[in-house]
Amino acid sequence: MRLPGTSPRAPAASVAGMTDVRTFVDEHRHELLADLDSWLRIPGISAQPERHDDVRRSADWLAAAARQVGFPTVEIWPTAGLPAVYAEWPSADADAPTVLVYGHHDVQPVDPIELWHTDPFDPTIDGDLLRARGASDDKGQLLFHLLGLRAHLAATGRDTPAVSLKFLIEGEEESGSPNFEALLAAQRTRLDCDVVVITDTGMIAADKPSTVTGMRGMASCTVEFHGPDLDLHSGVFGGAIPNPATAIARLAAALHDEHGRVQVPGFYDDVLELTGIERELFARVPVDDAEFLGVAKSRALHGERGFTTLERIGARPTAEVNGIGGGYQGAGGKTIVPSDAFVKLSFRLVANQQPQNIIKAVDAFVAEHTPEGIEAKIDWEGGGVAPCLVPLDTPAYRALTDAISEAFAGLPVLPTREGGSGPEAAIQQALGAPMVFLGVGLPDDQIHAPNEKVNLSMLYKGAEAAALLWAGFARLGRSGLGAT
Amino acid sequence: MRLPGTSPRAPAASVAGMTDVRTFVDEHRHELLADLDSWLRIPGISAQPERHDDVRRSADWLAAAARQVGFPTVEIWPTAGLPAVYAEWPSADADAPTVLVYGHHDVQPVDPIELWHTDPFDPTIDGDLLRARGASDDKGQLLFHLLGLRAHLAATGRDTPAVSLKFLIEGEEESGSPNFEALLAAQRTRLDCDVVVITDTGMIAADKPSTVTGMRGMASCTVEFHGPDLDLHSGVFGGAIPNPATAIARLAAALHDEHGRVQVPGFYDDVLELTGIERELFARVPVDDAEFLGVAKSRALHGERGFTTLERIGARPTAEVNGIGGGYQGAGGKTIVPSDAFVKLSFRLVANQQPQNIIKAVDAFVAEHTPEGIEAKIDWEGGGVAPCLVPLDTPAYRALTDAISEAFAGLPVLPTREGGSGPEAAIQQALGAPMVFLGVGLPDDQIHAPNEKVNLSMLYKGAEAAALLWAGFARLGRSGLGAT
Repeated sequence: MRLPGTSPRAPAASVAGMTDVRTFVDEHRHELLADLDSWLRIPGISAQPERHDDVRRSADWLAAAARQVGFPTVEIWPTAGLPAVYAEWPSADADAPTVLVYGHHDVQPVDPIELWHTDPFDPTIDGDLLRARGASDDKGQLLFHLLGLRAHLAATGRDTPAVSLKFLIEGEEESGSPNFEALLAAQRTRLDCDVVVITDTGMIAADKPSTVTGMRGMASCTVEFHGPDLDLHSGVFGGAIPNPATAIARLAAALHDEHGRVQVPGFYDDVLELTGIERELFARVPVDDAEFLGVAKSRALHGERGFTTLERIGARPTAEVNGIGGGYQGAGGKTIVPSDAFVKLSFRLVANQQPQNIIKAVDAFVAEHTPEGIEAKIDWEGGGVAPCLVPLDTPAYRALTDAISEAFAGLPVLPTREGGSGPEAAIQQALGAPMVFLGVGLPDDQIHAPNEKVNLSMLYKGAEAAALLWAGFARLGRSGLGAT
Repeated sequence: MRLPGTSPRAPAASVAGMTDVRTFVDEHRHELLADLDSWLRIPGISAQPERHDDVRRSADWLAAAARQVGFPTVEIWPTAGLPAVYAEWPSADADAPTVLVYGHHDVQPVDPIELWHTDPFDPTIDGDLLRARGASDDKGQLLFHLLGLRAHLAATGRDTPAVSLKFLIEGEEESGSPNFEALLAAQRTRLDCDVVVITDTGMIAADKPSTVTGMRGMASCTVEFHGPDLDLHSGVFGGAIPNPATAIARLAAALHDEHGRVQVPGFYDDVLELTGIERELFARVPVDDAEFLGVAKSRALHGERGFTTLERIGARPTAEVNGIGGGYQGAGGKTIVPSDAFVKLSFRLVANQQPQNIIKAVDAFVAEHTPEGIEAKIDWEGGGVAPCLVPLDTPAYRALTDAISEAFAGLPVLPTREGGSGPEAAIQQALGAPMVFLGVGLPDDQIHAPNEKVNLSMLYKGAEAAALLWAGFARLGRSGLGAT
């Protein structure tokens, strides 16, 4: 392990005179590259127990790097699983808002390794592209923050940042963040902040700067239907007793009408409908349905009538059959009435749906669709994940888009939404602060896949945007960010 | 192997003077028992390759037994699999009808062997019950025929039977009769007959003589739906592309309306509806729904509205989901849109539905229910099995029920129907002769299960009924049986 700082660099605070953010970033790119080369060599795969020591080394590396940048407080926070890194740098200014930056230092597994063209843990630069596991998700993005912070200090000539910064960098995000909510609860007081910046997402394209403004929540379950206590001969019993495989199919079929609208009573009750302005902004996002189909390797689009693909994925709740099974599964046929059948369902939720309400509604729906003579059992995966949404009319959002726009040559910044679900909702729920997303990954970064890469130019722009954002938040002050 | 005939017995034709059928059967019970003891020791399990030599020994035993009774022509008929036994005894009478008796000499496997209370191949007598694999299905029933034929000769004082008899005893029935249709086709001319007697079924109860009057046909298939070419992340793609698991569930759900009626267009077009008299006779069959539920280990009845359980099983066609699958099958959840899903369907058919028409109708139904973007594939298991039906208003049926009634102390004989499908339809289709069912198994015989037994008193009555039936058919003559 090569710790950061072994290559000489000017301490941010000692830069003689003021320089602008872009110039500082440009002049210190090589240090970002050196850090990337060093950190990306640590195979911190949280999903693989044999790599857990590497995840701990990864946390140590980041802690050392944060100290090197100047964070006065840097701690390794243990969890029941793998450690998080916490770094804190208070501003000297009285009204300085407190910003919490979230990211993760663990990485995805590399299988299938044979599909990689280069060693995933030997970073390789090819023009603007740097290839390695974690280059985009999420190490590269965290390192732009360190450079961005130095640029912020250099550009403002300050000894402390203009905002109080708290970095909370998780070590188990790629394993489903099993201990993250407990960590948030345990450290709730120290994590107090006025705004949260999530750095683990991407943009539409290098020349289409954008920001995530929502992530869907989720509730998922397995429904089991039990019919006769044994598989029966369909000649002797077929047509005279209830068939649980038919019943489970009828339940799954009843989830949607022919227009793709979910039929669980009350499902849409709390949905915050898109405003006209939001739909207009969504329409400007250049999602190409043909390209989307190409990535999905699907032959058609299908979803809730009246909404575009982007709206369906980002702004509309869904009910999805993830798995279905029951009865004979082998080759050919077997004339039985099966004893059991199941369906695995997941419901993606949008603001302001509450997982607990959806769970109740689905429970009632399943009961309603359980025929006489069938016994139903529903297992929910925990209590679900709440959706999170960034309102577009807030000072924090405007400061974010101003900073990104300035870093991206004045281009307008489009709002997008993620269809997936992550620990962000838990952060929002635990901390109760406004949240924005600053991430510069690109759709072709191959995160979670072989040959992950990052565009270095995006990292440089990310560093600029971060530096500008801290200044922007500082200008707003705590009260301007809506703190009470 | 102990061949039959090593215990001395009077040749049928040399019995001095006439005796009645019942007396002859009563006086020769011990010979039936000796034959049972000998034949049931041969473990002729057609489903187990290591028992195939035993199946061949079983055929040899039966051939020797038929010769012993007096059949002038007895042949072992090889097939691509295991041999059948064919025995022929022409009547000396010019107008004598020809009767073909069908049964099988192979037996079911004995697993789970640990649930047997006695050795399945060491026949044990306990009062009226004889326990052994094959005691009821089908060796016991074939042996009542040999005794019945001797009783017929004794009672009529004839040297040849009053009907020309052809026995076709299959050796692969318990393995699905894979080579039986080919055998029927190859031997079509020699199998020519005026009436077919199937001896491989049972009665409602020892004091409720009955006869099967129909067996359902079948067509079965696997429908595969292919959606995206790979499993997709349901957060990124869910709600925007067609889900094949949802589509297969909607297909399976569309098979029935809420009243259990099959919704495939044209499905009921050729169904021969039950007549008022048939429904009245069905209603007299003492099927106890509570007992039926107990055997099925089901908590409710369910089927086509407007029909009784017996009618649903015997006289109504069905569509049954035998298996369904797709997507994630493991513990917990996995948030995917699956690439593939399948459903295995079987359709039980009744007279006069034709499998080929049902296959066409289901093909069209699947096409109609394949959403845009989903690719459907249907694999049918061969061309299906036709249903067969015994009309109640025919001379053959009346002769059968008269014979059974006389053997069963004058009790009325109720018509029942089997829900399953067997080689009988192939026989009816190949030979084009009227068919009746003479079988004396009981519902608690545990055929295909551990501790198979037969009631010896039922075998004696079966022997009487067979003897009386040959006389009855002879009285009708060829023309009376409807031969042209």
